[in-house]
Amino acid sequence: MTLEETGQRAVKASRCLISLTEKQKNEVLKRAAENLRTQEAQRKILEANAQDLCAARERGMKESLLDRLQLTGPRICAMAQGLEQIAGLKDPIGEVLFDTVRPNGLHIVQTRVPFGVIGIIYESRPNVTADAFGLCFKTGNAVILRGGSDCLASNIAITAVLRQTLAECGTAEDAVQLLEDTSRETVRRLMRMNEYVDLLIPRGGAGLIRSVVENSTVPVIETGTGNCHVYVDAAADLNMACEIVFNAKTQRTGVCNACESLLIHEAVLQPFLEKLCSRLAERPVELRCDPEALAAAKRTGSALPLLAATEEDWGEEYLDYILSVKTVGSVSEAVSHINRYNTRHSETIVTEDETAAETFLNGVDAAVVYWNASTRFTDGFEFGFGAEIGISTQKLHARGPMGLKELTTTKYRVYGHGQVRG
Amino acid sequence: MTLEETGQRAVKASRCLISLTEKQKNEVLKRAAENLRTQEAQRKILEANAQDLCAARERGMKESLLDRLQLTGPRICAMAQGLEQIAGLKDPIGEVLFDTVRPNGLHIVQTRVPFGVIGIIYESRPNVTADAFGLCFKTGNAVILRGGSDCLASNIAITAVLRQTLAECGTAEDAVQLLEDTSRETVRRLMRMNEYVDLLIPRGGAGLIRSVVENSTVPVIETGTGNCHVYVDAAADLNMACEIVFNAKTQRTGVCNACESLLIHEAVLQPFLEKLCSRLAERPVELRCDPEALAAAKRTGSALPLLAATEEDWGEEYLDYILSVKTVGSVSEAVSHINRYNTRHSETIVTEDETAAETFLNGVDAAVVYWNASTRFTDGFEFGFGAEIGISTQKLHARGPMGLKELTTTKYRVYGHGQVRG
Repeated sequence: MTLEETGQRAVKASRCLISLTEKQKNEVLKRAAENLRTQEAQRKILEANAQDLCAARERGMKESLLDRLQLTGPRICAMAQGLEQIAGLKDPIGEVLFDTVRPNGLHIVQTRVPFGVIGIIYESRPNVTADAFGLCFKTGNAVILRGGSDCLASNIAITAVLRQTLAECGTAEDAVQLLEDTSRETVRRLMRMNEYVDLLIPRGGAGLIRSVVENSTVPVIETGTGNCHVYVDAAADLNMACEIVFNAKTQRTGVCNACESLLIHEAVLQPFLEKLCSRLAERPVELRCDPEALAAAKRTGSALPLLAATEEDWGEEYLDYILSVKTVGSVSEAVSHINRYNTRHSETIVTEDETAAETFLNGVDAAVVYWNASTRFTDGFEFGFGAEIGISTQKLHARGPMGLKELTTTKYRVYGHGQVRG
Repeated sequence: MTLEETGQRAVKASRCLISLTEKQKNEVLKRAAENLRTQEAQRKILEANAQDLCAARERGMKESLLDRLQLTGPRICAMAQGLEQIAGLKDPIGEVLFDTVRPNGLHIVQTRVPFGVIGIIYESRPNVTADAFGLCFKTGNAVILRGGSDCLASNIAITAVLRQTLAECGTAEDAVQLLEDTSRETVRRLMRMNEYVDLLIPRGGAGLIRSVVENSTVPVIETGTGNCHVYVDAAADLNMACEIVFNAKTQRTGVCNACESLLIHEAVLQPFLEKLCSRLAERPVELRCDPEALAAAKRTGSALPLLAATEEDWGEEYLDYILSVKTVGSVSEAVSHINRYNTRHSETIVTEDETAAETFLNGVDAAVVYWNASTRFTDGFEFGFGAEIGISTQKLHARGPMGLKELTTTKYRVYGHGQVRG
């Protein structure tokens, strides 16, 4: 099938999805979950996944990436459970956002409607296939999936179960389509299919996201990269600060809401580093410090790897057991530094001083700003949305964790009785 | 000044605007209106405008475009009035959109905040200069204006009054900056300044908008082009339909919400064209018809120019006294035709049949869908927003008329007491 045909089919399917009721959509999602749990589906998906894993090993893929690629019975069941959870969420479609009668009698009603066709471009996690379908389908959108070539066989097997479910339920199978041609040229063309695709969401590493933002003419929601800071203020509760930094840096290092850079007010530099170096000793976190912080860290006698930071370190998303450390003279200096180097994701101040907190919360330009909590909470589930398609780091349309509402657009319906404009 | 410096200054100014109160912003807007009304400001602006007009005439600009470029005392006063109206609107900044306390005690509050820096790329209407500043300033955004080279002198003079006002009020002058270098190369670089510009809004013709959508990596809100349809159903009140088509086609032809294409149910083709041709005789509207409609129109004996439509006509935004006319066999056929050729702007059905209306309103993919009213109402003022920065024909962030709210983004503030993620 050509990409053009895929686009046309997606548009056609999206027109059918508009008229599905919430109940009908939930039935499809629950049936898809059941179908994923069958012995036969699991066998087929695991066989396909074994092929992908074998090929990846031959190409020398490293262990951590192989783990992301690997499916197991429990992981397939987790996908099924994800679909059931989406079925349990409230459908945002039809929600009335604005309702007014104008002096001329025109009745204007703005409601949430599906986008139409959403393209998802992602890398080697095959669970995204079921997840992205579930979120898009619940919001009445047809989805075109372009997964990584690494997990193509797995994605084909998962998509087959989803399409079979749609057929069983009498719904347009093309509500989910997977691009089997994963070439660069095809993905570039997908990014320019404004005629058929209403929205593109890249999910993956910084390189993938940059490429989509730079090459796409279809509107994009930029997700993901996070150079997140924790600022420990002069008025911080240092024990609390220490636990927050420990959690934000080490609880999971490979995620976008992990802390990558620590700012410390000079007034508490030494005592805070004493606490922190001792706490971080449990995990061997490497500290890359400005000269003052480096001297202070060395004075603690810590066995942690202590290096001098370079200019590049301030902008780095390590996704590893590495933390850059900078000394600042004031909350304003912390705000300026963050606004210069951050990726507009999540930023925390630890302080007992309300004025300092307000300066930080107002001044820092980020999707989520925290006072006395870990950056790790930036997540659709932690925010109570029950689902997440990604974390938007742009300001257009959606900012921060994106749930179902963020996969909808709006439409104005205007009811008249012959009004014309004078 | 380099474009880089302009971007840096805009970002710096935008940080200052965040802390302005609604009252402070309104005072600046009212003062700017006063300053525009002074004898001296008017003299300078009119002198600059005379230069622009003279140069444009020498280049052979046609009369209708010269009119758009021309300023007069009353037009300058209208700009001033526009700023006062914006001062009178409610400030959307700070509005709380989501407020929840999670089971772990985290208090999450989502509020409206400014985007930061907005770029506006526009053509030869110098009034956009004051208008775009007013809307951006009221919403706490710094703006970089790139007007047409045709009205550069006028834009410089207007911007000088605005910047002088900001200085008088002790506010960052760089809240408004005009690019004096209007070269293609500079505008292309502006479209890729993701580091400094949060949002681009093109205002102008289809060519300008396409160029911005295709070349920009900064998020764009696509505005403007409108291939709007009126569908006259079998169950239409034909007198009402006739008035709606007459209004939508002829009240102002050069605007995006004017009707460009008429669909008529075959059951009422002849009687409707009888009425319409007689009504349109007042203005010489050229009809470009499919074979059935052409035969029917000829049978009316109308003196209107009657031509056979080509395939291109269905997708054309004439912005002129021309209307394409197509016969359809059902409301579904009308919906399919519209979804194939429209620009997702504004579409009307005229009918007394509620089922037909619902099929149309649900099925047509457009920002605004009307039942028994003219497409000409798609406008921020007509919708009661009190202002308009443009009409979005995309689905991301804003769809339909955009007022102040559409110039804002959101920010999550999260208040904790030391929470870490388990």
